[in-house]
Amino acid sequence: MMENIKHIPENGKKRVVIIGGGFAGLKLARQLANTAYQVVLIDKNNFHQFQPLFYQVATSGLEPSSIAFPLRKIFQKKRNVHFRMADLLEVNPNIHEIYTNLGKLKYDCLVLATGVDTNYFGNKNIEQFAIPMKSVSEAIFLRNSILRNYEKALNESDPEKAANYMNIVLVGGGPTGVELAGALAEMKSDILPKDYPELDFSLMNVYLFEASDRLLNGMSDAASKKAETYLKKLGVIVKTEARVSDYDGLSIKLDSGEEFNSYTLVWAAGVIANPIKGISKIAATRGGRIRVDLFNKVAGFNHVYAIGDLAIQKEGDFQNGHPQVAQVGLQQAGNLAKNLKLLLQGEKMKPFRYKDRGSMATIGKNLAVADLPGVKMQGFFAWVLWLFVHLMSIVGIKNRFFILINWVWNYFTSDQSLRILIRPKKRSFTDRASEEHQRIKKINLN
Amino acid sequence: MMENIKHIPENGKKRVVIIGGGFAGLKLARQLANTAYQVVLIDKNNFHQFQPLFYQVATSGLEPSSIAFPLRKIFQKKRNVHFRMADLLEVNPNIHEIYTNLGKLKYDCLVLATGVDTNYFGNKNIEQFAIPMKSVSEAIFLRNSILRNYEKALNESDPEKAANYMNIVLVGGGPTGVELAGALAEMKSDILPKDYPELDFSLMNVYLFEASDRLLNGMSDAASKKAETYLKKLGVIVKTEARVSDYDGLSIKLDSGEEFNSYTLVWAAGVIANPIKGISKIAATRGGRIRVDLFNKVAGFNHVYAIGDLAIQKEGDFQNGHPQVAQVGLQQAGNLAKNLKLLLQGEKMKPFRYKDRGSMATIGKNLAVADLPGVKMQGFFAWVLWLFVHLMSIVGIKNRFFILINWVWNYFTSDQSLRILIRPKKRSFTDRASEEHQRIKKINLN
Repeated sequence: MMENIKHIPENGKKRVVIIGGGFAGLKLARQLANTAYQVVLIDKNNFHQFQPLFYQVATSGLEPSSIAFPLRKIFQKKRNVHFRMADLLEVNPNIHEIYTNLGKLKYDCLVLATGVDTNYFGNKNIEQFAIPMKSVSEAIFLRNSILRNYEKALNESDPEKAANYMNIVLVGGGPTGVELAGALAEMKSDILPKDYPELDFSLMNVYLFEASDRLLNGMSDAASKKAETYLKKLGVIVKTEARVSDYDGLSIKLDSGEEFNSYTLVWAAGVIANPIKGISKIAATRGGRIRVDLFNKVAGFNHVYAIGDLAIQKEGDFQNGHPQVAQVGLQQAGNLAKNLKLLLQGEKMKPFRYKDRGSMATIGKNLAVADLPGVKMQGFFAWVLWLFVHLMSIVGIKNRFFILINWVWNYFTSDQSLRILIRPKKRSFTDRASEEHQRIKKINLN
Repeated sequence: MMENIKHIPENGKKRVVIIGGGFAGLKLARQLANTAYQVVLIDKNNFHQFQPLFYQVATSGLEPSSIAFPLRKIFQKKRNVHFRMADLLEVNPNIHEIYTNLGKLKYDCLVLATGVDTNYFGNKNIEQFAIPMKSVSEAIFLRNSILRNYEKALNESDPEKAANYMNIVLVGGGPTGVELAGALAEMKSDILPKDYPELDFSLMNVYLFEASDRLLNGMSDAASKKAETYLKKLGVIVKTEARVSDYDGLSIKLDSGEEFNSYTLVWAAGVIANPIKGISKIAATRGGRIRVDLFNKVAGFNHVYAIGDLAIQKEGDFQNGHPQVAQVGLQQAGNLAKNLKLLLQGEKMKPFRYKDRGSMATIGKNLAVADLPGVKMQGFFAWVLWLFVHLMSIVGIKNRFFILINWVWNYFTSDQSLRILIRPKKRSFTDRASEEHQRIKKINLN
């Protein structure tokens, strides 16, 4: 018999339980702060992660803490909001209860905002050896891997073997792949040769493989073409219609039969939603996304909502669902917050309608592409806009300030100073996490 | 047969191999840059660590990267300095060779600057469960442990059990213990109650246990007394002549028979030098320190030197060796650098003479103690001096600037924002490191 999560009072308020403190979940929790609801926000981490800048952490340009913000701090003075660091195990929608590793909890309204994870499309080899980029820890892992591989390259006398450690292969030509490729190309030209004067950097290649026929598939043709031009100018080897079929940790095989060698393969080729026990079997599509109506209510359930990347909603021009970008999640969270407030007043909810504010990607210093409603920009002004928009979206004034200083510093020196490889202490949290995982498995859900 | 470390040219220059990039090793390498020597600096990490501020990383006040500086960056333009991230396995002084996990290397002059590690005095239980504080990773580990334990406290309905997670016990009343105690007491009063409004902080205690009869044993009586007064004012429970004899992860036993409960025990009660195969058996004292003469030459060997915390030198007023503080290592490095340059010119080396510049410790906001030559200070001015001296000792202008901003921010808001618990990705570096360790073991030293 699982006990209740402790210290969450039964105080007569309707309880909204939000699973996931990403863009969507965090915005909803913030908008329901200081309302008549009791809000319980649950995330497996104790911080919100700003995903658009993961690639700068991976390339030693920003500190993890600049793009990770402690959730407790955000809700310090919001007495109706309770945060818990916990893993969701299962939902029982019949009795309005969720189960976590901290215990169970009743809800009046459940909002799922767990987002998506890396999709390896069932390829176990790739899953084992490739590096994903869907969390701050994974970005740090990539940073550490790159630094470690350069140390290894230095101890190879055979230049071809050294090149295997120096090469970096990025799979997936979406914003993550494109932005990483650009940042790595800049590291190759500006930083790495200074750090490793003994290595021959003409041997190093940054590859970007995309399965479809163009980069930045969600953006305009003009943006795609320009992004490819910029990347090639920076020295990236871009290959479209290139499908990676296998990887053994060193040798990368393409469908075409071509082979490449690299100890560093970053997999940003697709996403999938992790299944939610009790919900997904009934409401999920093949990609794991949860079907919702225009009010973000999950198909087949009452009092259960899904927002953000996890949700798939037929709406207006988006009959196959919206793109999985921050803007959709933020807007859905805003609409759901309004609707939950209307509900309190006994009023009718309003359907969601997505307002496309455009999209952008940065490739390098002074180089970005932006598709805005009514105008497409490339180059310096797009880059300045990109910087501004991302800076303003960061949680916390101090973070904003630190990122700005880092950017200005890096711009003028072209030499980020964060190339440190911190290895965990003996008892790593992986071990502890797995101990906990074992414990969780043993908990009897009855 | 072990191969040579690659890409270190034999160019007729005398080769100085320095093991350890701490205060002493780093200073020596810097002073030998752009000389007629070839310098090879070896460290197990790719960064220099600024130990005096570990406690601020542990208490979420500073970013690890602010006090860790990439060694490669320091030597980017020094073409006679080669850095290698490697573990020293053994020294063969007869044939002037060292062995590392990257291969072997001949030296003309070997300088050992590997410092010291935590000493558990043979108590295996304490070693297993206590948290040490001798590296950035260990400081991060402590930060994560504290944050994790507060999340656990929150899920206890029994206040006594919750208190076990909230209490923090520090063993060792030196600067580390004192500075940590002060910072934790300030977290207790200023930060934690805001983050965890559901918890009763009157249950939380910060304990500081010291085996001798006073805190800060290396400092004046006035400093010791004042430090204790300050700590008590901040709410720390200070116990001198308190020897911890056992710890099982929760229950702490003192020699006196008293028992205390806490899941967080920080062990800063002693240091010991890790043995160096090929050297220590002949030249080490019981505490592992290597005996050196007034030129820092290791007793019984030629062309082998030891500097910093690792070395023990009878000199002037210090017939039992100098205190193990940064100043000694820095001054020894400076003297050795001068001597090695004299050697090049065929001149006579000069003996080392320690110039005590004083010592200080900070307890909290506006509270510090300082023993300077000729003057002892406590309180606000000592604190400002402490800030200034530490800021100026940090490597890197950007680091200095970031630390300054963090300090100013934290001073006025009393709310550090770095309370994030980042867990490593699936394949942790611990695993990899241990794989490598296995590989190293297999290397045949012949």
